[in-house]
Amino acid sequence: MSTRTLLDDVHLSPEAEAVFADIRAARGSGFVNNFWRALAHDPALLSETWERVKRVLGETRDGGLDPLTKELVYIAVSTANGCSYCVHSHTASARAKGMTRAMEADLLSVIATAASTNALATALQVPTDPDFDAEAK
Amino acid sequence: MSTRTLLDDVHLSPEAEAVFADIRAARGSGFVNNFWRALAHDPALLSETWERVKRVLGETRDGGLDPLTKELVYIAVSTANGCSYCVHSHTASARAKGMTRAMEADLLSVIATAASTNALATALQVPTDPDFDAEAK
Amino acid sequence: MSTRTLLDDVHLSPEAEAVFADIRAARGSGFVNNFWRALAHDPALLSETWERVKRVLGETRDGGLDPLTKELVYIAVSTANGCSYCVHSHTASARAKGMTRAMEADLLSVIATAASTNALATALQVPTDPDFDAEAK
Amino acid sequence: MSTRTLLDDVHLSPEAEAVFADIRAARGSGFVNNFWRALAHDPALLSETWERVKRVLGETRDGGLDPLTKELVYIAVSTANGCSYCVHSHTASARAKGMTRAMEADLLSVIATAASTNALATALQVPTDPDFDAEAK
Amino acid sequence: MSTRTLLDDVHLSPEAEAVFADIRAARGSGFVNNFWRALAHDPALLSETWERVKRVLGETRDGGLDPLTKELVYIAVSTANGCSYCVHSHTASARAKGMTRAMEADLLSVIATAASTNALATALQVPTDPDFDAEAK
Amino acid sequence: MSTRTLLDDVHLSPEAEAVFADIRAARGSGFVNNFWRALAHDPALLSETWERVKRVLGETRDGGLDPLTKELVYIAVSTANGCSYCVHSHTASARAKGMTRAMEADLLSVIATAASTNALATALQVPTDPDFDAEAK
Repeated sequence: MSTRTLLDDVHLSPEAEAVFADIRAARGSGFVNNFWRALAHDPALLSETWERVKRVLGETRDGGLDPLTKELVYIAVSTANGCSYCVHSHTASARAKGMTRAMEADLLSVIATAASTNALATALQVPTDPDFDAEAK
Repeated sequence: MSTRTLLDDVHLSPEAEAVFADIRAARGSGFVNNFWRALAHDPALLSETWERVKRVLGETRDGGLDPLTKELVYIAVSTANGCSYCVHSHTASARAKGMTRAMEADLLSVIATAASTNALATALQVPTDPDFDAEAK
Repeated sequence: MSTRTLLDDVHLSPEAEAVFADIRAARGSGFVNNFWRALAHDPALLSETWERVKRVLGETRDGGLDPLTKELVYIAVSTANGCSYCVHSHTASARAKGMTRAMEADLLSVIATAASTNALATALQVPTDPDFDAEAK
Repeated sequence: MSTRTLLDDVHLSPEAEAVFADIRAARGSGFVNNFWRALAHDPALLSETWERVKRVLGETRDGGLDPLTKELVYIAVSTANGCSYCVHSHTASARAKGMTRAMEADLLSVIATAASTNALATALQVPTDPDFDAEAK
Repeated sequence: MSTRTLLDDVHLSPEAEAVFADIRAARGSGFVNNFWRALAHDPALLSETWERVKRVLGETRDGGLDPLTKELVYIAVSTANGCSYCVHSHTASARAKGMTRAMEADLLSVIATAASTNALATALQVPTDPDFDAEAK
Repeated sequence: MSTRTLLDDVHLSPEAEAVFADIRAARGSGFVNNFWRALAHDPALLSETWERVKRVLGETRDGGLDPLTKELVYIAVSTANGCSYCVHSHTASARAKGMTRAMEADLLSVIATAASTNALATALQVPTDPDFDAEAK
């Protein structure tokens, strides 16, 4: 189910077609997943979303995070936000970028532990230590 | 404010005292932050929470994630869960473990982009592509 | 799947039957969606939930929000809360009340942008400006 | 408290200075709120965030949502995501753009009702009615 | 800080005054906490919110949950939703209604464990077992 | 769909097999639900998760919460976190442990009311009353 139809290639506007072509070129694959097909009804949002994702996940800045680490962070955020689609698609991406079984095991452990201590800190309403305040330094 | 008092060192039970000693030994520092002081009213929960955090964040398994990457994931989860305390404490930990300005910039970009596409995928209720299904393979 | 069966019309208690009749009258349609059929096991909760939804979404107070704007807000909340059912049902309602493609495009853009800046403000733990404090005025 | 210092005007990089000038020009006011001062450490993220917010909230597309309705949606998302800073800043913006007491009362009622029915639909795991499926039409 | 002033007793409308009188009568105490003072700007929402809370938390139905168990559930929901105010106020209520240290320790353990397994089930996107489907029975 | 295959009994490692045997012994039933089958790829995480759940939900400490109350709290947290799987599995557990229709009706009412007042307190950014501060006492 979906709140919109998923557009197949023959129903795209020229603007959406151009974005799909860029997705395929960037990935070196003909596959365009459903997220982009649902967005394609709205070419402006499709284009700006794709440009952003391509830049943020694709570019590597000097001294910044490597592509795989970015996917791990993406999975973590998607899990905490409860986005089924995003958990599926970014787990697939992370595996394609080299996530090993040991890395995945660690990722799950950290996500589960963080969820647990987040809940404890919130339930106890622990006040932030002055040592953690950037303004104080 | 807090739903419990924060225990200072002289009001600890012997069990809590032992956990605090282990926290100090593991960190090589006398500082014990408020999270543990709020938990210290409940020595069993204090102990099991500390053991888990120490193991998950401290141990490095073969081929697994390095300590800094784990902190980045921790920040991502804590942000998505809206845990102020945890965002503060794990940002401090990540910096102590070597998070550079470039890494932090990338982390923020990925967190913000993931939050945005999570919202879009949920608002559109995009159905998961069969290609992402582990059972199908 | 569901944690309860969905009651069809012949299995309703008299109290639930009366609520269903009112739902049909208010909507001018015979269709009663699954949400109410799952709630119908508990006629008191069914009745109070329907009365509230009918009043909040149906009444227009002087100078207040029009019915379509209320549905847009409903979609926004449901998306942020990750409620699949509610995203589907209120997107359908918003369309029935006149949401155009241009409005839907704007709605998605605002929801996605808000999710993104929410994440940034939380990740940075930005302190609220005194100018925003109602008590200070 | 904050995970970063808030940059005042004399500590800005030239790129950040240019963004601040644009914020002031767009608003016709000298006031730049803390969110931008925390982001200013990272001029690229500052610039892209501001450009996006300016475009999404500032432009009015034909047949799209008016600026005030967009702020109402922003408040709704920020509330559901639990972002204190964003609730404060966008409530202030909505009031500046004409949100009346009656509108605010309606907004709160819809947000509270949506939160409540979101919880019920999730607790009952109500299956989406086929009538709501865009693909089926 | 607050998005609205907190009304003190001398600035109440007659409708709000009547609700405050009922709050005091129900609690047998002169204390009216800030939540109601912020809501008091909007007497209709104040009244309907109070009536609902009074009924849901105050009444005991035959074979239903006792008042203390309801407060424990309230704390659990408020923690998962990240509502600081609500965690504080309902922890105070639960203690006033007899929550012991042992109960609070159990409550925290269950909340933390649930948060953790929720994250794991979401990260793994575990499909619901047919055995859990009410419709199948 | 799932991000991992669900392991059936003949594909378990010896460590996972031992955990499954313990799950069956603790429950007095041959049924092992999908959550554990998805975790079984990672025997260490499987084992530590099961040990924790068994201890937290299974043990009864003096003066602490009974097993059914713990399940009610688990449902409440799972609902607020939007975990479909967990809502299904813990609703089934709660029923198996004696949750009556009246209890379930109360549980739903409290969850829905808490979600609603959580949203209001967050939308109004109500400051916590000094009376609720444990540190002040």
